[in-house]
Amino acid sequence: MTKNCLNQENCIPIFSENSSGDFFSCNPWLLFFNRNKINYQIFSLKKNDTLLFNSSSRLYIILIGSLIITKVLRNTHKVTLNLLTTGDTFGQIELVDDNFYYEAEAIDKTEVACINYTTIIKACSNCAPFNLFFVNHLVFCSAKAYHFIEIISHKSITSRLASLLLLLAEQNGTQVNNGIMLNFTITHKILAQIIGSNRVSVTRILANLLKTKLISIQKKRIIVHSPVLLSQRILNQ
Amino acid sequence: MTKNCLNQENCIPIFSENSSGDFFSCNPWLLFFNRNKINYQIFSLKKNDTLLFNSSSRLYIILIGSLIITKVLRNTHKVTLNLLTTGDTFGQIELVDDNFYYEAEAIDKTEVACINYTTIIKACSNCAPFNLFFVNHLVFCSAKAYHFIEIISHKSITSRLASLLLLLAEQNGTQVNNGIMLNFTITHKILAQIIGSNRVSVTRILANLLKTKLISIQKKRIIVHSPVLLSQRILNQ
Repeated sequence: MTKNCLNQENCIPIFSENSSGDFFSCNPWLLFFNRNKINYQIFSLKKNDTLLFNSSSRLYIILIGSLIITKVLRNTHKVTLNLLTTGDTFGQIELVDDNFYYEAEAIDKTEVACINYTTIIKACSNCAPFNLFFVNHLVFCSAKAYHFIEIISHKSITSRLASLLLLLAEQNGTQVNNGIMLNFTITHKILAQIIGSNRVSVTRILANLLKTKLISIQKKRIIVHSPVLLSQRILNQ
Repeated sequence: MTKNCLNQENCIPIFSENSSGDFFSCNPWLLFFNRNKINYQIFSLKKNDTLLFNSSSRLYIILIGSLIITKVLRNTHKVTLNLLTTGDTFGQIELVDDNFYYEAEAIDKTEVACINYTTIIKACSNCAPFNLFFVNHLVFCSAKAYHFIEIISHKSITSRLASLLLLLAEQNGTQVNNGIMLNFTITHKILAQIIGSNRVSVTRILANLLKTKLISIQKKRIIVHSPVLLSQRILNQ
């Protein structure tokens, strides 16, 4: 359809769903980059490793893992902007001035692919299916930000934590016999950082949720027993 | 460059900045739709008029005015997701289930253009400059959501209100001799709705900001005298 697209027909099936086989060989972004000989870098982050970014010229794609995105206002304070997981991207935030920068902190073992943003834009104009994939991805990014807004719109820390657990259970949970188990371990300190609180408060609230049997811990992972009952806990605040 | 794009060369200058002349004749979206004979509808909303949307099949473009986007969870509560102004869009949020819907409430006289989302996607594939414009717009949408997160990440209502006034001054303000005047009048009730509070609290906090001369009111509009001093008020909470 466009003369610049060398193998458009080849790149259509890349964006079909494929959850079997080796993870990296079926990641839609990497499949597309590899088939079209597009250069990218891979960063492997351990838990608590932090990636600083203050330029909108690169796009970071989370291949696997989870990161907290934070805006750091120089000499003042930090604001947690989002919790991103496998398939999410960051880096395409505008830069206003020198008064702040962004950082991404891994909350689990995380692999990130990094690519120049101009390369992505060029790929969009050269390959219509990739362009559609990218447009849909950007719409999904806004939706993801709105999910985070639903968590922190609560003023009460108990409501924020219950909302976060519900979102994690929905997006990063696996059904087990007595509820939904989170796919990763998460420290009280990280939970506090996400919801803008402190470790002590989070430990106290989790102890209460455990006592009232709304959650339990198994193999160091949180299990949400009943999303309905937990969501009622939010409204009762 | 692509055989489907009838007048690609013509549509390039549409996306250049043009702030002179009649507003609607130089709106980039309308210019593009009109030149390419793309159908759209215009809705004129008065203050407090509400537009319900529970489908992601249409894109709404704010031609002029301001709206609050709210997620309404059936039988339970509402969450304000964002404050959108001239040039912003909404509607492209995913629909998960029947437990909620979205509404957009005008906080000022507002004109909205509405177009089928499939038409936008088709236009993207037919016209490369429009596609680039739309991709940049979607990136901007995420950034806008992050601005809102910065406001409601505060647990204190005073900090949320001060953050909101700073954002409004930056994005919807005009420099006057003694500070930055907001471009529209806004009621205490609407301010409360945006930050998840009530009218009484907002009135009390605004009275305090007036008393300490951080803001003043002129022609029913709020003037922020010093963004620096007001931002310090946030940190002191």
